Amino acid sequence: MPPSGRHDNGSLPPPSIPPSLPAVRLRAAPRTSAGARPALSPPLPSAERGLGAHPRRARAAVAAMRRGERRGPGGALGKAALEEQPDGPGPRRSTESEVYDDGTNTFFWRAHTLTVLFILTCALGYVTLLEETPQDTAYNTKRGIVASILVFLCFGVTQAKDGPFSRPHPAYWRFWLCVSVVYELFLIFILFQTVQDGRQFMKYIDPNLGVPLPERDYGGNCLIYDPGNETDPFHNIWDKLDGFVPAHFFGWYLKTLMIRDWWMCMIISVMFEFLEYSLEHQLPNFSECWWDHWIMDVILCNGLGIYCGMKTLSWLSLKTYKWQGLWNIPTYKGKMKRIVFQFTPYSWVKFEWKPASSLRRWLAVCGIIFVFLLAELNTFYLKFVLWMPPEHYLVLLRLVFFVNVGGVAMREIYDFMDDPKFHKKLGQQAWLVAAITATEFLIVVKYDPYTLTLSLPFYITQCWILGIILVLTWTAWRFFIRDITLRYKEIRRQKQEHKYEKDKCLSNGDGHSSILDEQNGNKLRERKL
Amino acid sequence: MPPSGRHDNGSLPPPSIPPSLPAVRLRAAPRTSAGARPALSPPLPSAERGLGAHPRRARAAVAAMRRGERRGPGGALGKAALEEQPDGPGPRRSTESEVYDDGTNTFFWRAHTLTVLFILTCALGYVTLLEETPQDTAYNTKRGIVASILVFLCFGVTQAKDGPFSRPHPAYWRFWLCVSVVYELFLIFILFQTVQDGRQFMKYIDPNLGVPLPERDYGGNCLIYDPGNETDPFHNIWDKLDGFVPAHFFGWYLKTLMIRDWWMCMIISVMFEFLEYSLEHQLPNFSECWWDHWIMDVILCNGLGIYCGMKTLSWLSLKTYKWQGLWNIPTYKGKMKRIVFQFTPYSWVKFEWKPASSLRRWLAVCGIIFVFLLAELNTFYLKFVLWMPPEHYLVLLRLVFFVNVGGVAMREIYDFMDDPKFHKKLGQQAWLVAAITATEFLIVVKYDPYTLTLSLPFYITQCWILGIILVLTWTAWRFFIRDITLRYKEIRRQKQEHKYEKDKCLSNGDGHSSILDEQNGNKLRERKL
Repeated sequence: MPPSGRHDNGSLPPPSIPPSLPAVRLRAAPRTSAGARPALSPPLPSAERGLGAHPRRARAAVAAMRRGERRGPGGALGKAALEEQPDGPGPRRSTESEVYDDGTNTFFWRAHTLTVLFILTCALGYVTLLEETPQDTAYNTKRGIVASILVFLCFGVTQAKDGPFSRPHPAYWRFWLCVSVVYELFLIFILFQTVQDGRQFMKYIDPNLGVPLPERDYGGNCLIYDPGNETDPFHNIWDKLDGFVPAHFFGWYLKTLMIRDWWMCMIISVMFEFLEYSLEHQLPNFSECWWDHWIMDVILCNGLGIYCGMKTLSWLSLKTYKWQGLWNIPTYKGKMKRIVFQFTPYSWVKFEWKPASSLRRWLAVCGIIFVFLLAELNTFYLKFVLWMPPEHYLVLLRLVFFVNVGGVAMREIYDFMDDPKFHKKLGQQAWLVAAITATEFLIVVKYDPYTLTLSLPFYITQCWILGIILVLTWTAWRFFIRDITLRYKEIRRQKQEHKYEKDKCLSNGDGHSSILDEQNGNKLRERKL
Repeated sequence: MPPSGRHDNGSLPPPSIPPSLPAVRLRAAPRTSAGARPALSPPLPSAERGLGAHPRRARAAVAAMRRGERRGPGGALGKAALEEQPDGPGPRRSTESEVYDDGTNTFFWRAHTLTVLFILTCALGYVTLLEETPQDTAYNTKRGIVASILVFLCFGVTQAKDGPFSRPHPAYWRFWLCVSVVYELFLIFILFQTVQDGRQFMKYIDPNLGVPLPERDYGGNCLIYDPGNETDPFHNIWDKLDGFVPAHFFGWYLKTLMIRDWWMCMIISVMFEFLEYSLEHQLPNFSECWWDHWIMDVILCNGLGIYCGMKTLSWLSLKTYKWQGLWNIPTYKGKMKRIVFQFTPYSWVKFEWKPASSLRRWLAVCGIIFVFLLAELNTFYLKFVLWMPPEHYLVLLRLVFFVNVGGVAMREIYDFMDDPKFHKKLGQQAWLVAAITATEFLIVVKYDPYTLTLSLPFYITQCWILGIILVLTWTAWRFFIRDITLRYKEIRRQKQEHKYEKDKCLSNGDGHSSILDEQNGNKLRERKL
C-alpha cells in the first residue's frame, strides 16, 4: 500500500512532490515526502549549530521518533510525524545507527484495540454463558485465575506502554512486559506465604513439585587424564560435556547482545566463577573442578559465546537499517529477505558504558553488574529453596523470560544513564526486572535463611575483602583524589599563564588577557566534565 | 526553579534571550525561549498553509505536546520539546483552549521511579523478613493477594502509560487506570465461578455479604396530595426526598462534565427513565411513581445537575489556562489560588459530538449512549445478582470508580472519534471501561438468566419496536436516502450548469468551462463529506 493512499483528510499532497517515494530517509536528511510536510519554524541563525551542539535535543527527537514509529499513529502520518521533528542534519546520537524507512504502516502494524476487545468479549461470553460451569470450586478458582491472567495479557499486549524495541513487533515486547508483571505478582504472593505453604503452592502449577530435592553428589574426581580408568582416561571431561555446555554458550551469546560490551561481559563471566567458588559451601552444585570453572566455562563456553556475540554486534552496528513495506518490494527473494529481517532490530544503538567517565556512571555500572550477578545466583538459589529440579520446565521458562526482558531492561538502563535529563524515568521493563530480582532474593532469604548465612570460609572472606578494598581505593583515586590533583595542577598552570600574559600585556600594551582567561576556564571545565 | 537552571548539557542558552521567561506561551505563538530552540526546517512555501489546512497534523502536535507535558522529560527541556513541534501559528483544534505554561517542572512532577522501587523493596523486606509470618494459610493467601495488588498499583502509578488528563497529577489518573485493571480482573474471576461460589466469594471481602437480600416493597401510593393522611397530605413526596436526591443531582453534574453535551445528557437521562419503566417487572426497585420519574428525577435532580454542569463547562471553556510554577508566584494569595487551580483541568477541549455529520459518528454516538445506559443498569443488576445491599460501601466505591474513569474514557473516545487517523488506538481507559461494562453484563447474565429473560409486557415491547423503527428510519433517511437525493440533485444542477456554460461558450467562444466543471465537482465532494 503506497503511502499516498492514506491522504484522506481532504487536503491533497503538495503537487511538486511525487506521491509515493520508495524510501524516505529518516533522521539523516529531512526531506519533503508525500506524508511529511515540515511546517514553518523560524530559521534562527543558531539553528545550524544543532548538528552536534544539542545532544539532548537530538536524543529527545530520536526518542520521540522511535516512539512515533512504534505507537504508529496511523498511516503515512505516523511516519510524517517523525520527519516533522526539526532535527536538522545530524539528529541521532553518535552511537546510533541511521535508519531509512518508507513509512509503510499496514494491517500488521496497527493496534487493533477494537478487534481485540470484540473478540475478547465474545470469547468470554462463549466460555461463561454457553459452556456449563463445572461444580468443582478448586478447578473454577484455578480457571478464574488463568482467565484473569489471559485478560490482563490481552489488555497489556494491546494497550501497554511501548518500550525501546519494535522488531519483530511492538506487541511482542508488550507481551513480555505483561509477563513480567504477572511473574512479579506471583513472586510477591509466594513471598507472603509460609515456607511450607509456598513450597506446596507449587503443586498447583505442577503436581510433581512440592517434594524435597534428592541430595546429589557433586565434585568428585577432577583429573583431566584419569589413569585409573583404562577404557577412557578422559571420561571426566566427557562427563561434563552435557546439555549445559551449549546452554552456557548460547546464554552468553545472548547476554553479550544484551550488554553489548566486551569488558563488562568478561568481568561478569569471571566474577560469576568467583561467586561459584565462594558459595560452593552453601549450594553443592556450585562446586566444580578448576578446569571446569576456568577452561570449559570461562574460556570455552562463555568466551566463545561472547566472541560470537561481539561479532554479531559489530555486524548489527555496521548493517544498513533500511525498511521497506513488504508490498513495496518487487522480487520474491526480496520479500523473503524482508520477512527474515523483521527479526533483526529496527535500528541499533552501540552501548558505550564508559564506567570511568564519572562517579555516577561508575556506580551505575557497578550496580548493573551487581544486579546481573544477583539474578544469575537467584536462578540457582530459587531452584534450591522452592524444591525445583534443575531440569524442570519452569526453570527453563524463567531463563527464556529473562532473555527476553533482559535486553529491553538493559537498553532502558543505558538510555537512562546516557541521558538522565531526557529519560527522566527509569524504563518500565528495567524497573520490573530490578523489582523481580529483589523479590526473588527476598524469597531466597525468607525461605532458607540458614543456608544463606552459612559463614564463608576464611580464605574466601579474605579474597573478598581484598577485592572490595581494591575497588574502593580505585574509586577514591579516580573520582576524588585524581580530580583534586588535576584541579590543583590546572589552577597552578592557569596562574602561571596568567602571570605570563600579564607580563606580555605590560610589555605590548594590548589587553586580550581576559579572553585567554576565559579559554583557561573552559579548559578546566572540560577536564572536569 | 527557573528553567535556565537546567541548562547543564554544556551548551549555553542563546545569548539574545533572557534566561528565564516568566510565562512561555505554548501553542499560540511558538517563540524562542531559554529552553526552546526551533531547529532548522526547510521553510516551504506550503508551510504557511499549516494554519488550518492540516487539522490532523495540528492535533498530532497538540497531543504530542500534551504528552510531552505529562511525561515530563525533565526540566525546561520537557517544555522545550513542546515548542519544538513545528506547529506554525495555529496548531490547536478549534474546540481546544489555549494554554500558557511557564514550564516549571519541580519535584512534584517528577516520576521518582528509583525512589518508589527502593521504598517498595525496603517495605517488602521489612514485612516479609523482619515480621514473623503467621501460620494461618487463609490469612496469608489474602495477605499475599492484597500485597500483589499493592505492588501492581506501585508499578502502575509509577510506570503506566499516561492518559489525556494531567491535573491534579498524572499519577492520580494512572492510579485509577490500575484500579480499573484490578477491578476487571476481579470481575473476570467472579465470572468464572459458579453462582453459589461467586456470591459466597464476596464474604472474603466483607463477611456480612453472601446472604440473600430481603424482599422489599416498592411502589405503593402515588398520590401527590394524599387526602387520607390528614396530618401531612404531602407525605408521599417527603418520603421520596432521601439521600438519593443529592446523589442524583451530583451524579448528573459529574456526568455532564464527562459528556460535555446538553443533548446527549438529556437523551441519556430520559432514556434511563424509559428503561426503568421497561424493566420494573424484572427489578422491583425500578418501579417509581410517574412524578418521581419525570418531575423529581428528570426535571429536578438530573435537570438541575445538567444545568449546573453546563454552567461549569462554559466557565471551563472560557477561563484562561495559564500555568505558573508555585515558586514563581510572588504573593501568598496567588500561591493559594494556584494550589486550588491544580484541581482544575490543564487545558480544555469542548466536545462537539456532531452525531448527524456522518454515519460513523452517528453509530459511535449511539454506541456510547448504549454502553453508558448499560453501565447504569449494571449498577442495579449487579447489586441484585451478587446480593449486595444498596447502601453497601462497595456499591458506592464502584460509583466513585466510574466517576473517575468515566471522564478519561469519554475524552479518549472523543479523541478517537474526532481523529481516528491520529488516535489510531482507542485509549486504554476507554478500552477498559468497555471491557468492564461488558464483563459486568456477562456476570449479570450468567448469575441470573431467569430474571433477565422475563418477557417484557406487551405495550412496552410495542414502544421499543416503535422507537427502534423510528431511529432506523431516521438513520436510513439521513445517511442513505438524503445522500442519494442530494447527489441526484447535484448532478442535475451540474448538468444544467454545464449545458448553460456550453451554450455560453458557444456564443462567447472562450473555453473556461472546464474550470467551472471542476468547481462543481468540488462542491459535490464537499456536500458528500
